Formats: sequence, C-alpha cells, structure tokens
Amino acid sequence: MKLERMLSMKGGKGEASYVNNSQAQAQHARSMLHLLRETLDGVRLQSPPDFPFVVADLGCSCGSNTIYMVDVIIQHMTKRYEAAGCDPPEFSAFFSDLPSNDFNTLFQLLPPYGGVSMEECLASNSHRSYFAAGVPELIKLHAWINDCPFIKKWFIPIPVYINKVPDVVLDKRSTAYNKGRIFIHGASESTANAYKKQFQSDLAGFLRSRSKEMKSGGSMFLVCLGRTCSDPTDQGGAGLLFGTHFQDAWDDLVQEGLITSEKRDNFNIPVYAPSLEDFKEVVEADGSFIVNKLEVFRGGSPLVVNHPDAG
Amino acid sequence: MKLERMLSMKGGKGEASYVNNSQAQAQHARSMLHLLRETLDGVRLQSPPDFPFVVADLGCSCGSNTIYMVDVIIQHMTKRYEAAGCDPPEFSAFFSDLPSNDFNTLFQLLPPYGGVSMEECLASNSHRSYFAAGVPELIKLHAWINDCPFIKKWFIPIPVYINKVPDVVLDKRSTAYNKGRIFIHGASESTANAYKKQFQSDLAGFLRSRSKEMKSGGSMFLVCLGRTCSDPTDQGGAGLLFGTHFQDAWDDLVQEGLITSEKRDNFNIPVYAPSLEDFKEVVEADGSFIVNKLEVFRGGSPLVVNHPDAG
Repeated sequence: MKLERMLSMKGGKGEASYVNNSQAQAQHARSMLHLLRETLDGVRLQSPPDFPFVVADLGCSCGSNTIYMVDVIIQHMTKRYEAAGCDPPEFSAFFSDLPSNDFNTLFQLLPPYGGVSMEECLASNSHRSYFAAGVPELIKLHAWINDCPFIKKWFIPIPVYINKVPDVVLDKRSTAYNKGRIFIHGASESTANAYKKQFQSDLAGFLRSRSKEMKSGGSMFLVCLGRTCSDPTDQGGAGLLFGTHFQDAWDDLVQEGLITSEKRDNFNIPVYAPSLEDFKEVVEADGSFIVNKLEVFRGGSPLVVNHPDAG
Repeated sequence: MKLERMLSMKGGKGEASYVNNSQAQAQHARSMLHLLRETLDGVRLQSPPDFPFVVADLGCSCGSNTIYMVDVIIQHMTKRYEAAGCDPPEFSAFFSDLPSNDFNTLFQLLPPYGGVSMEECLASNSHRSYFAAGVPELIKLHAWINDCPFIKKWFIPIPVYINKVPDVVLDKRSTAYNKGRIFIHGASESTANAYKKQFQSDLAGFLRSRSKEMKSGGSMFLVCLGRTCSDPTDQGGAGLLFGTHFQDAWDDLVQEGLITSEKRDNFNIPVYAPSLEDFKEVVEADGSFIVNKLEVFRGGSPLVVNHPDAG
C-alpha cells in the first residue's frame, strides 16, 4: 500500500490516540487565530448569500482541533454578515483526510446539527450550525464543489507531509542515500535536494488541484510546519522532533538489537519543512495563485506543551 | 441519546459485522436492478454536462452493497452518455448515515479513486470513477448540493425505520400500549395506528427535505420494506422477522428470567412496513413529488439467504 493511502494519526479515544495527544497542535492553532481572523476579514461578503460558504480542512485528522477551527471560521463569518446587516449564507464543512483516518471518532465528536430538532438542540451543550461531510481523499478534489461558481472555499491544510520518500534517499547506490538517518535534518545536500524536489512537485500538484476549484473570490489560508534557515538540512522545529527525538528512538532500537540498521535505513520520515523562499518559489512557478501574505509564525515546539493540563 | 442518533448496523469486519452479514440485502438489491436501470433510462441526459451527477445513498450502512449500487448507477449512466455520443459528467456519491455508522470500514472498502495516479490504478483490481464523501446525517440535507441547480440527485434510501417508537406504544395508560409485544405485527389497531401516524410524519418530513434539494430533472428511486396486506397489523416479511423471530427471542429472555417482562414491554422495534396505499397517501398529501411508478417487488425473506455461499 502506498504511503499516502495509509499514513494517519492514531484513531480512537484511547490514551495514545490523537484525540488525547493533540494539545500541542491545539495550542499552535489557537496561537495563530489572529492571522486567520485577519484573513477572514478580507473575504468579500456575498449578498444575497445565494451559495453556501464552504470550509474545507484537507488533512483534518480525527480530533476536536479541526472542529474548533471550522467553528472559529463560521462564527467569525456569521458575525461579519450580521454586522453588515445581511443574512449569513448556509455553511458547510468538508473534513478531508486519507481513507485510513478515523472518521468515526471525528463524526462522533461533531455536535448534533442545530436544525435536527429543537429538543435535541436544547438537550445538547452545543450544536452545529453547518452541514458536515467526511471526504476520504486528499489529493483529488470534489466534483460537487468543482463546478459551482461563487462557492467560497476555505482550506486549512497543513501540508507538512510529502507524498513519498524519494526513491534515491533509500537507494544504497545513490549519492542521496541517507545512511544512518531517518530524516533530512543534518543529512547530505543530495538527500536534502531529493526531499526538496519531492516537496516542490507535491506542492505544485496541490496548487494545481486547488486552482481548478477556485472560481471567484476563493481564498486559501495555509498553515504548515516551516523552517527559518535557508539550508534545508537544518529543519528547525521539525528537525528537533524528527531528526533528534525520533532519530534517537530508532538508534536505540538498532543498538538494542531489536531491528537491524538496514531496517532503520530503509525508513525515512516523509516530511519537509519549507522555508518562505521554498514556498514562494513553487507558488510563483505555478502561477495560479497570488501570495497575499507569507510569514513565519513562531508557535513553539511541535512536541512539547508547557501546560498539558490546560490543553 | 435519541434513537435516530445511535441506531446502526454492526461495524467492523468481524464475524457478526454487517459487512459479513448482508448477503440477504445484497441478493434483494440485485434482484431489483432491472427496476433501477429502467428508472435510470428515463433520466434526461445533460449535454454539455456542466454539473456533476450526484448519487446519494441515505442510509448507506458500512458494507459493500452501497458501493455496488452506486457503481451500478454510475456505470449505467456512463454507458448511456457514451451511447448518445456525449461526454459523461463528473460523478460523485454521498454516503449518508447516522453518526454511529461505521464510515471507517466503508471508506476502506472504497476502491482508490481512478485519477490518483496511473500506477495506483494499475496496481489495484478496481478503481473508483467518482468522488466520494460520507455524511453523518440522515434527516437534514446538504447545503452544498442544496442550491446548485441542475445537479442530478439519486437517492436510494430504504426508509424502513421510523424515527421513534411512538410514546403511547410504551405508555401503560394508553390504549395503544403494546403489552407483551415488541412489534406491531399482531398488535391492536390502536398500536398500529400510532405506528402509522409516526410513519406518515417521518415520510412527510423526508419528502419535504428532499423536495428542497430537487431543482430540475431530479429523481428519487426509493426502495423500502413493505407489506401487501392493507391491515398494518399484518406486517408481512417484516412481521416474520421482527414479530416472530425477534419476538420469540425476547420472550425466551423473559421466560429464562434474564430480563423482566416490563423491560421487554419497554422496547419496541421502530419499523413500519407500509402498504402501497400508505405510501401513496403521504406522497399525495405532501404534494411535492409525483409518483412515476409504485409497485410491490417480492424479494424473498428479509432474513434468509437460500445459498449463503453465493453471497
């Protein structure tokens, strides 16, 4: 099975589940809400609201973070419509991830739709003011929003993962072979270049797919793990997580004789944290989008939550 | 939690799962494909195909039957477009069921989307020629198809279940109290009338919701468990299943002292198999749909498969 068909956060509601281990992600997402709201303030209101306002989270996973972000967007837009004295449009959300994602847990976390019945609405602590669908797909887009003009689309993808580890990185005969390492942090220039090429190809494909959907007034708000150093072999926060903590864990497994070093060398983490320059290069070469704003936001370590109890 | 939020087929792929125990449903669905194809032959082709053709299974459950039926519809329509020398439209399918439905199993049963990559297409035994989404909702409809004119919608719901067991049926003080019974098969006229009223209200709500979506050229193909007798206390096949087999099981539990008779009497199966007349009455009173064809199709017992190995 190909990587992009199986890579998912741990489902369920157990101790090791993503639901119970995504406080860091929650913290980072909340810390950049002012940027999201600022972007939403720039969206043109549609009056009369003839078409639904569609929010899409491409890479939603199965925790409550995705529901929270969708709520923030819809509440913010609702307030803007109300402030302008207009009826808000109908809202809907596409929760999109790989088929191996735990959509069951996600669907059970969704509050009931507000319109189902008044009693249910009152009985529940919260209710949902939008229609929701799960889409077991990441790469390709959705025909049903493809050809509907004027649909507002909001994507909040976090395109950290590349679609595959480049073959050359796992090929002993290649100069890009990443011997002894499971990530490009601290790797050779050849290895880093192979990862960068894969990132460029994946992001270009992502932009092409999105550009086919966007008709009029559509915008994207992208958040991804990035790096500040121009050299891709210094992966910053991603380097700390994958190149140090994960690397140590794999090395321990080898040293304790639990796996062979060949097995470790056959595995590489399919992640590339781009610099602003990396990102901009691909967007400009593709040409279908204009960058309104591009900036580094320091959200802290991707691993550690200072106050886990507050999560 | 309300009945309509929790009632679902057994998920997973285990021995007792719906995936492994829906051969009877498969057999019945396949036996009436000629009626479905006949109906599809009446759908007006759209040329040029500017809008996607949407198939929706409201009450999809988690087995391969729903995928099979969607495939049949899309293949049939594709052939019709090809025979007419037209490009087929893009197809998409909404798999809709209660939030407690096992969408994970369903999504993992879906073949990969044909367009992902040529290698993946070739590597897989089958591929999917439509976009797919899961909708954790049954009653309310989907804004994103609500306001798009000309979208073709196909629903294949099997509205066997009523939304709730009428309160009076479980109320000792009521003449409709269904003492000793867990279903209306063989029950009193008052009990049957309470069920019928609930059925009428539910079907009318269902039609109202659907009528808001249908714009132009939309059609519904409905299949439901029905009865041939005009008296609703003779529930036909549903009576055999729920009123005899299930009733016996509950009675055994009471006789063996495992549950009290009060507990049994507090439970009633939320199913009403309508007659053609019952169905027609509601459609005509609602007025938003015209019945093109309405017939009883004898698909055999809802429980027994003659040749389980052929399933």
